[in-house]
Formats: sequence, C-alpha cells, structure tokens
Amino acid sequence: MTRASASASIIGMPVPRAKLAPRLRVTLGSEIALGPGKAELLGLIASKGSIRAAALQMDMSYNRAWTLVREMNGLFRKPLVVSLRGGGTGGGATLTPTGARVLRLYGIMERDCHRAVEREWKSLRALLRTLA
Amino acid sequence: MTRASASASIIGMPVPRAKLAPRLRVTLGSEIALGPGKAELLGLIASKGSIRAAALQMDMSYNRAWTLVREMNGLFRKPLVVSLRGGGTGGGATLTPTGARVLRLYGIMERDCHRAVEREWKSLRALLRTLA
Repeated sequence: MTRASASASIIGMPVPRAKLAPRLRVTLGSEIALGPGKAELLGLIASKGSIRAAALQMDMSYNRAWTLVREMNGLFRKPLVVSLRGGGTGGGATLTPTGARVLRLYGIMERDCHRAVEREWKSLRALLRTLA
Repeated sequence: MTRASASASIIGMPVPRAKLAPRLRVTLGSEIALGPGKAELLGLIASKGSIRAAALQMDMSYNRAWTLVREMNGLFRKPLVVSLRGGGTGGGATLTPTGARVLRLYGIMERDCHRAVEREWKSLRALLRTLA
C-alpha cells in the first residue's frame, strides 16, 4: 500500500484531504484589484479568447465577468483585457501585455508563497484530523 | 518631502494605498479548518482570555464566535480552545498548547508568504493606478 493510498482512507472510510490555499488579495483602498477569482478569470480569458467562455467556465454570469474586467482595467495604469471585435456579446477578448504580465506575476507569487510555507504547512497538517 | 508622504498623495489628492494580503486558507474537504478570520479569533482569545471579548473586538456575535471555535476544535486532532470556568457566558477561555502551536504556525506562514512574494509584489504594485 502506497503512502498516497494510505492517506486517502482509514479502514476503508474516505478521509477528506487537507489542503492549503494561499489566496493573495491585492487591494487599492477598499477595492480588490486582484485576487484568486480575478486571476482565474484573467487566465481563462487568455486561454479561451472570450469573456463569455471564461464566465461560463467559472459558472459566472457574463455581466459579472464584465464587471470584474472593468474593475481590473480601472485599477491598473493600463487595461488588462481588451475586446477584439466591437463591444457586443460575440466579440473575442484578449489580455494586453500588461494583463499578461499581471497574470504571470500573480502566478509566481502564488507559487512562491506555497513554497515558502511548505515546512510549517507540514507541521500544521499533522495537527489536523486527517491522515493526509 | 519623504518618499512616504509623496506616495500618499498626488497634488494634494489622497491616493488609496496598494496592499497585498496573503490569506492562507486551510481546508479539510469542504470545511475551512483555518483562515484569516479564525486565526484572528484565536489570537484574540489568547490575548483577551475570553471568547466574548474576542467576538466583540471582531464585531462578531458570541454565537458566531462559538461556532467557529467548535469547527476548529472538531477539525484538529485536539481542541484548540478550552473554556476555563463552566460553559456559561461568563467563563473565560484560553488556547490549548495545540491551539497556541497552530496560531504560531499560521503566523509564521503568513510572514513567510509575504516575504517570499516581496519582489514580484513590487513589480505588480508598480502597475497599479497609485503612487504607493
């Protein structure tokens, strides 16, 4: 029996896995310029080339996605997302160079944070009611 | 004029400060074992010796604070918080050794995460619509 499978059950009962999620939130005054949700949205717009498709994937309304995009665009010096063809519902969207840079920096920050806390996280996890 | 005061205004207008908040969330399956709110509650119980006083400080109902304490106590192998005198509303409360250890580990993780992302945060902050 591998360690991984041992950590997944106690005498056959499924045991929830302990997870650590570093959620980095960038605020400007009372407004959230960037956080896990906005970063995920940026990533999906980049990969799907469409705000509508990104919103659908996140189970979010198109309106809500547009609101988040407008907020981000307004809080950075340059817009992060631009519509490609018109402002209508069918037009594609893409990240600007600033948007791509912001998304990359955020990803590095998430990764570096995770790495930095690895040792303490192991100690903390051992105190949780789980084998994982 | 110092850099600090320069960053607080553009031609006399107040400019919101950019802030980075690493919010570490520890989940066990669908439940949140620890996060910024629960960690703050633990810290206040430790310093005030009372769940009621901690709740008041966080602008949280006593009931809500007790629910959070019960959740944490149930998700760790050993309770993090114990009531000192009876179960009534007047009794004090304190962290157990496990509770104190969990709080300390969480604090170290927050600090280490912040340090680890410092360089990228500077780059990201420079892209925000602020002087800070």
